[in-house]
Amino acid sequence: MTFQDHIKRCNAWTPHLYRPLSVAGHPVGMVRHDHAEALSAFPDIFTVTSDTVRIAATHKTPAQRTQAAAQVLDTLTAQGKAPRSRHELYAVRTAFHNPDLMQIDRGYVAMLGLLAWGIHVNGYVRQPDGRIMIWTGIRSASKTLDPGKLDSMIAGGQPASLSLLENLRKEAAEEAGMSADIAAAARPVGTVSYMMDNAWGIRRDTLFCFDLELPASFVPRNTDGEVERFELIPAEELIEQVRRSQDAKFNVALVILDFALRHGLLDPEKEPDYESLVRGLRAPLSAP
Amino acid sequence: MTFQDHIKRCNAWTPHLYRPLSVAGHPVGMVRHDHAEALSAFPDIFTVTSDTVRIAATHKTPAQRTQAAAQVLDTLTAQGKAPRSRHELYAVRTAFHNPDLMQIDRGYVAMLGLLAWGIHVNGYVRQPDGRIMIWTGIRSASKTLDPGKLDSMIAGGQPASLSLLENLRKEAAEEAGMSADIAAAARPVGTVSYMMDNAWGIRRDTLFCFDLELPASFVPRNTDGEVERFELIPAEELIEQVRRSQDAKFNVALVILDFALRHGLLDPEKEPDYESLVRGLRAPLSAP
Repeated sequence: MTFQDHIKRCNAWTPHLYRPLSVAGHPVGMVRHDHAEALSAFPDIFTVTSDTVRIAATHKTPAQRTQAAAQVLDTLTAQGKAPRSRHELYAVRTAFHNPDLMQIDRGYVAMLGLLAWGIHVNGYVRQPDGRIMIWTGIRSASKTLDPGKLDSMIAGGQPASLSLLENLRKEAAEEAGMSADIAAAARPVGTVSYMMDNAWGIRRDTLFCFDLELPASFVPRNTDGEVERFELIPAEELIEQVRRSQDAKFNVALVILDFALRHGLLDPEKEPDYESLVRGLRAPLSAP
Repeated sequence: MTFQDHIKRCNAWTPHLYRPLSVAGHPVGMVRHDHAEALSAFPDIFTVTSDTVRIAATHKTPAQRTQAAAQVLDTLTAQGKAPRSRHELYAVRTAFHNPDLMQIDRGYVAMLGLLAWGIHVNGYVRQPDGRIMIWTGIRSASKTLDPGKLDSMIAGGQPASLSLLENLRKEAAEEAGMSADIAAAARPVGTVSYMMDNAWGIRRDTLFCFDLELPASFVPRNTDGEVERFELIPAEELIEQVRRSQDAKFNVALVILDFALRHGLLDPEKEPDYESLVRGLRAPLSAP
């Protein structure tokens, strides 16, 4: 494995599998052709042609669209034609700062190829000699996605009802037993984005990354069962482990690479493809 | 002005003005049609068709190509059909880590639309209360490009004969009167890239960015006449000045924006287009 391989893995998707989804005239998603066929059974709600999917124009408000789509997707789930719902609403937007066009259960986001946002917090401790140690979660064996893999200290998808900071505080408490006081030191440091095919469709994710320098006395403690344990790993060691293996959760590899680049832990002179790594971490999320 | 405007300004270019330039079968540049016509007067060296420009295949080694192209371009300069030469050789490569296909005088890089690399060092001082002050150069009134504008503390194009670190040390001494000992604390933090039309062709630049935290006792002192004076400006103030004006050199605006994003000085929740700013700083440098 190289870092470039991790970026390729998170950006492996097949344009011809999808047709665009629009809501109120705005391009918001990409639907796989087989799922578009399934949605075409509900013509009052989804208007499906051979090359597009739209929410029917009769559903005029975000609330009406939210309700109508939920009804269809829950029916498809019952028929085994859509994934299970997750009972958490995500915003449907053309960009993070644009208004909600509707909301949709988290479980259906990839099936509709919607943009999704999340937060990742790099929790680290600086040793007296300046070296950095990174608090790394080992994902619970019971997770559906990437069980047992390395994870950021704090991470989570972005629900429609919270601000980024509220979400960060919530996840900090749940995932790392962290008080709001300590979490308040997290500082935003940019984003990482990628598009990849998955079992139900395509992920089009933007992760808001945060760095959180922690006192040596802080020890994270998971409270929601999502993390089996935490390890405090020297940054150089973690970065090399990520480089040469798939031990990290697929997108966490990118978050750690971004941390390594920003903190001067990779040498631009010696690192193969340094400049294309920087670009590769920020894939545009639109169809070509 | 918004930050997005600065990114647009550095990425304003017109695809139909150019035809591709290749060397030994590798796409390396983009030549404006009028300059392609001028090069077609030297068919032993430049093979020009209506949609491509190539260095003639008879020039087989990098050294032969370097010499042949220099002869043509110096002739065109004497005829007023090419810019003045700068007496500094740049490497012609398809990416920073790839081998030199030839070398060319810095003065002709934009005319041939070659990839170019540079270094920018953000020199800053952290106050006891944690606030950041940035050492900012005011460019000399005698500079051809962006005289009197704000500049990075240390910056420079990347000559073929130096490593990035050697270039950083050389520019640190020339531009800021800085010893190699102090410069050694500079740490690489990623890249910024952009493509823009200019008077002679197109710039396709990748800037290797470095952060250098300085002791409060250090005061930069320019030795090469390129900087008129330095000011130590509170980061928030400099960032807002960059946002709302064109006071900074065109590409320095991007370097300061990148610094602001990485250091948590912009709020992802409130900053318009935060996610597209992060992407916009890393434009791919290939034709669409």
